[in-house]
Amino acid sequence: MPVSEFDIIEQVFRARARQGAHVIHGIGDDAAVVEVPEGHQLVISTDTLVSGVHFFPDADPYDIGYKSLAVNLSDIAAMGASPLWFTLSLTLPETNLEWLKLYAEGLFQLSESSGATLIGGNMARGPLSISITIFGSVPRGDSLLRSGARPGDDIYFTGIPGMAALGLSMLKGQISPVSSVCVQRLNRPEPRLAVGQFLRSCASACIDISDGLAADLGHILKASQVGARIELNSIPRFEVLPGLKPETLWELVLGGSDDYEMCFTAHPRHRALIEGHIWNDVPVSRIGRITAEPGIKWVGAEGEEMRLDIKGYQHF
Amino acid sequence: MPVSEFDIIEQVFRARARQGAHVIHGIGDDAAVVEVPEGHQLVISTDTLVSGVHFFPDADPYDIGYKSLAVNLSDIAAMGASPLWFTLSLTLPETNLEWLKLYAEGLFQLSESSGATLIGGNMARGPLSISITIFGSVPRGDSLLRSGARPGDDIYFTGIPGMAALGLSMLKGQISPVSSVCVQRLNRPEPRLAVGQFLRSCASACIDISDGLAADLGHILKASQVGARIELNSIPRFEVLPGLKPETLWELVLGGSDDYEMCFTAHPRHRALIEGHIWNDVPVSRIGRITAEPGIKWVGAEGEEMRLDIKGYQHF
Repeated sequence: MPVSEFDIIEQVFRARARQGAHVIHGIGDDAAVVEVPEGHQLVISTDTLVSGVHFFPDADPYDIGYKSLAVNLSDIAAMGASPLWFTLSLTLPETNLEWLKLYAEGLFQLSESSGATLIGGNMARGPLSISITIFGSVPRGDSLLRSGARPGDDIYFTGIPGMAALGLSMLKGQISPVSSVCVQRLNRPEPRLAVGQFLRSCASACIDISDGLAADLGHILKASQVGARIELNSIPRFEVLPGLKPETLWELVLGGSDDYEMCFTAHPRHRALIEGHIWNDVPVSRIGRITAEPGIKWVGAEGEEMRLDIKGYQHF
Repeated sequence: MPVSEFDIIEQVFRARARQGAHVIHGIGDDAAVVEVPEGHQLVISTDTLVSGVHFFPDADPYDIGYKSLAVNLSDIAAMGASPLWFTLSLTLPETNLEWLKLYAEGLFQLSESSGATLIGGNMARGPLSISITIFGSVPRGDSLLRSGARPGDDIYFTGIPGMAALGLSMLKGQISPVSSVCVQRLNRPEPRLAVGQFLRSCASACIDISDGLAADLGHILKASQVGARIELNSIPRFEVLPGLKPETLWELVLGGSDDYEMCFTAHPRHRALIEGHIWNDVPVSRIGRITAEPGIKWVGAEGEEMRLDIKGYQHF
């Protein structure tokens, strides 16, 4: 007897979708019913992962489950919000219970550790893809936007940029040897939820780095109508690999996608607060400052301007 | 020069995504920021349409745009909620601006007439599919659930069941001639928003009919732990087509998917209210009653029980 959509939902997902905070009716009706915490605004984002585009078709289903929620949580983190709930739309070519169980393991591991509860979803037949819509809350008026950067603000980001892209190049056989640290960053990005919530007290603008540092910083600059001066020397770099050409290095560091780290700006008066904060092993680097003049100026070790043509991730 | 994801969003979608009620920050940041109206709960649902599964690959993009929002609004209607916002995840094999513009026309026509505002989304490369997450509000505690049906309640539904399935059979060349009324019901279902909102005052349970009347009534029965007795004669039927076998007729009427009509139950004391209501051309039929005994009993014109094996829509 074929397994029906409803049996699958029942077996794999409903059992793990614990009753979350502020959930009045979860999975099982035409829609979920929820309540937003008093005095808070709701933050909503959505992201899709497509097989063969955003992950390898034979990737570990656990990693796909983990990452499909992580990339969405990263958007919530960049708004300074606390996760509440998510919905899951899963399109599958066939009913593969083994695959689904592993997928659910990865998904619910992060669901439980982040506090984001599954409240509803949908399964359809078709080429493998996963759409998640994520919900978080921020105290009224406190969300971190892209548009708040002002000339003179410091520019920071978390992590070591390009690690995930390096992992991808390794898996594709373009760079060797394969480093498990880089592959781990690609497959299991850590949404910077605590960072985002801390930044509500001091950051002027924030974005998560999904398309590459240069491209995502560019979104802050465009939304804030400002420019940036970046000291290339102050960007932390993974151990330089033998045989990596400088162009490839900079494309990885500044254009590498999938890091899901935070890029943010803050008035220099917050420098002591930010740089003295206990970041729990998350590296935080100050790499430049916001300028009134538009565009990004890349500056080398001797203060010389460098011409870099960073492409970043192209969706089409 | 290739058109980038951001240009497309800018050109096609952002221009039409008007500032909606309770939207603090719409499209353009890592996430949208919204506020739920005072004293209300938030109702959330998500649904995906996959090319070649839920619509023909060469279907009119306008219809796809319209229907992708309509099927989601139908879930909101079944909860008795008023639409607020939606997010759109669009996966496309290529950047086709002409297709996107037509798609957006259909989408925004219904967005504007229903009051559901686009607040965010995502575009990815991959096989054509569309995931929408929809949001609505209900006064606290007033949502219509599947679980409230009680023995003795009347069973109603709107519309003429099977019209959309008949339209699909016609487009597939299985039934002729093609009736434009049936094809219209398939391609442009009308979410029963006003019906759902009215039913908050009197219905005990409600569901939208997407997988066929028998299957969706079955969900009410299961959630409410009751059964039903249905008078087949009281079900309105499309003009019987010459040459249609009785089995095919009943499979279409009771198992036909994609109608997006409402099926609901109500205590008999509300009969005058419901049957005297001005429904604005939406046919509403009372077709049976809820029983304590589980399962559905199909009853013929002479009161005889009939054995019908209705399959309904199988997702896998």
